[in-house]
Amino acid sequence: MAHDVSNDSIYQQVEAQACRAKSASIGLRTLTTGVKNAALQAMASALVAEQESILQANQRDVAAGQERGLSEAMVDRLRLTPSRIAAMADGCRQVAALPDPIGEVMKGWIQPNGLKIEHVRVPLGVIGIIYESRPNVTVDAAILCLKSGNAVILRGGSEAFHSNRVLCDVISRAAENAGVPAGAIQMIETTDRSATSHLATMNGLVDLIVPRGGGGLKKSLTAVATVPVIFAAGGVCHVFVDESADLKMASDIVFNAKVQRPSTCNALETLLVHRNAAAQFLPAICDRLATAGVELRGDAASRQVVPSMQEATEADWDEEYSALILSIRVVDDVDAALAHITRHGTGHSEAIVTENFRNAERFLNELDAAAVYVNASTRFTDGFEFGMGAEIGISTQKLHARGPMGLEALTSTKYIVRGQGQIRP
Amino acid sequence: MAHDVSNDSIYQQVEAQACRAKSASIGLRTLTTGVKNAALQAMASALVAEQESILQANQRDVAAGQERGLSEAMVDRLRLTPSRIAAMADGCRQVAALPDPIGEVMKGWIQPNGLKIEHVRVPLGVIGIIYESRPNVTVDAAILCLKSGNAVILRGGSEAFHSNRVLCDVISRAAENAGVPAGAIQMIETTDRSATSHLATMNGLVDLIVPRGGGGLKKSLTAVATVPVIFAAGGVCHVFVDESADLKMASDIVFNAKVQRPSTCNALETLLVHRNAAAQFLPAICDRLATAGVELRGDAASRQVVPSMQEATEADWDEEYSALILSIRVVDDVDAALAHITRHGTGHSEAIVTENFRNAERFLNELDAAAVYVNASTRFTDGFEFGMGAEIGISTQKLHARGPMGLEALTSTKYIVRGQGQIRP
Repeated sequence: MAHDVSNDSIYQQVEAQACRAKSASIGLRTLTTGVKNAALQAMASALVAEQESILQANQRDVAAGQERGLSEAMVDRLRLTPSRIAAMADGCRQVAALPDPIGEVMKGWIQPNGLKIEHVRVPLGVIGIIYESRPNVTVDAAILCLKSGNAVILRGGSEAFHSNRVLCDVISRAAENAGVPAGAIQMIETTDRSATSHLATMNGLVDLIVPRGGGGLKKSLTAVATVPVIFAAGGVCHVFVDESADLKMASDIVFNAKVQRPSTCNALETLLVHRNAAAQFLPAICDRLATAGVELRGDAASRQVVPSMQEATEADWDEEYSALILSIRVVDDVDAALAHITRHGTGHSEAIVTENFRNAERFLNELDAAAVYVNASTRFTDGFEFGMGAEIGISTQKLHARGPMGLEALTSTKYIVRGQGQIRP
Repeated sequence: MAHDVSNDSIYQQVEAQACRAKSASIGLRTLTTGVKNAALQAMASALVAEQESILQANQRDVAAGQERGLSEAMVDRLRLTPSRIAAMADGCRQVAALPDPIGEVMKGWIQPNGLKIEHVRVPLGVIGIIYESRPNVTVDAAILCLKSGNAVILRGGSEAFHSNRVLCDVISRAAENAGVPAGAIQMIETTDRSATSHLATMNGLVDLIVPRGGGGLKKSLTAVATVPVIFAAGGVCHVFVDESADLKMASDIVFNAKVQRPSTCNALETLLVHRNAAAQFLPAICDRLATAGVELRGDAASRQVVPSMQEATEADWDEEYSALILSIRVVDDVDAALAHITRHGTGHSEAIVTENFRNAERFLNELDAAAVYVNASTRFTDGFEFGMGAEIGISTQKLHARGPMGLEALTSTKYIVRGQGQIRP
């Protein structure tokens, strides 16, 4: 760890790593799937074989965290165990088993002049991944970048520094021994915060930054980044229970979307209920949610039905609670539901529960979001649940990748053209 | 034209237009292909029907340009004629005839739990197009945005102000009468330069900025934009004439790539010749190029073969001449050619002329560029030549769209999920 070096020297360190990554990316571009998969298997074995040194390094981070008074939840995110290491190794094997996105001919055709054109998938080049406390992201990010033919520069949270350093060392050594170019997997070893902003301005060396972290990281990166950035999303997700909904189904979906894992970005934050369903639906679902520990905040109309609820303020409609809190609003019809979501949604995941075909179609077609659902929980917006076999994050931006990002989100494309001497008339 | 308003007031004007565009984009999202195509046909007819007022407005711009001493080439870019207006109208009809990208189900499948997932193409929303002197871009940009279901905010060069205003008025009126939401096609009417930077920071209202202009525009936008920007590309393109090349074919390709339209971004800037082909190839091609008025700048080895050439400096290898100038370098082999292009190329279009299979494959696979060619002119990197039927520009960036950008580059995607009450276990 180099706390005391000058800003210039940090820039030079990071630049040297980026140059090394760029250079590795040239070899990675044409690395065969066989070599990449063998490397992933070797990484899995190395993680298990070198478990002891990983656990020892992790123990240093955990002890330091406890000393600094981290909450038990934070310490738990930090902590590695043999079974967590085994899970990382499994992750390597699972990514090895995924189809290689690189080289896919997405489209191929012959022009009237005989030019044979193929539109093929290629690696992006060099990807920077910036993340916070959980050390397993070190392995997750590295294996997705490797499988998609990219060099990766990892930048984890300082509280997991020793764990990340050993993990990166173990997997990069295993990869290199299996034929992956040196420099393909690197970690920024200074904990100085300026390293991140340096990385985000190295156009020409770094092709993409993926920050996996909270709003603070997002804000600070937006201000400085000139390299393209894909942010993992925040989500103010809605479920609209229509007049015609199967209310048993609606109750299960709302309960699942709110309670099953409230800290995730695809969890429910605001429940919208059709006026004609409110009297029948709200008392039972509110009971069920309250029993599960959910704090309920309703508008006037819903509090007429369930007076025990707190009053929702205007600010509640824009809040991503990421916790066991739910705001509830009664709306007149599907138009009012669409208007509310258009105004307050973040374009992540929105669901309608309905038996009405026309309302279902309108909801699917008129809302502008990464994922729109009829009669299913918003919690399914996830790379694994969508069958991608992997996930680097969920995007709510509209360019390049929207929704769950699998291996394809880490690729670019190029046109390959074969001719017989064609010139342009 | 409002030259004298305050910066705040310009911001408010632009924001009001962006809000109107955003609002139009909601209706555009679900506008049928039939209505969009009818609007495009109506725009074509209106351009022809209102030709007189268009020509009159254009005459004001041309006269003002001549008074301000614009070059004859610049004035010609500005000038509209009945045949140029007819060409714009044809453009509308051609875009009407293109397949609608919106609603395309790119992939659809059923998950093991019964969730039916579709990945579909949707509009981006609101697109800002910033361009320079040619007034036909007003129509080109508007029709591509309309066909792809996007609202557009146009910002043309001040020298074409009156022409652009009438064109925008004619086509937006025709579109609106045909059922397109009001506000779908708008033009920024202040010529104050700050309008552009305001537009480029309206996240949440503007989804994409496409600047079609030179390096100055690119630089000033990069500094301020927080909205995603896709730049039309610059290109330092290469042709490598390999040892085994058919030299007649090589001569035709090199001549075409350099001379056919030297101002374009896909024109040849640096010719690389295999050492063993130099003595036979260079004298004839240099003669042919010089006769066509091309200024030649060679390295030492090529000047040994053709001593009449100027000496190339190191700076020549990175220069986009966009003119009848060509730099020439002799290289030892395909490795040296790949190394030169990797170092000096801009990732636009690169070609090899060879009869050697292995070298052809290496060139195609190892180079990182939007388009790579074997035995064809780099001049084919173009939306029309690639069969897209339209082009909004050529991208050399790697995210979202790379290479010629057709209608698909103006779209995003979303996941549509239909269930029967699924919840996440």
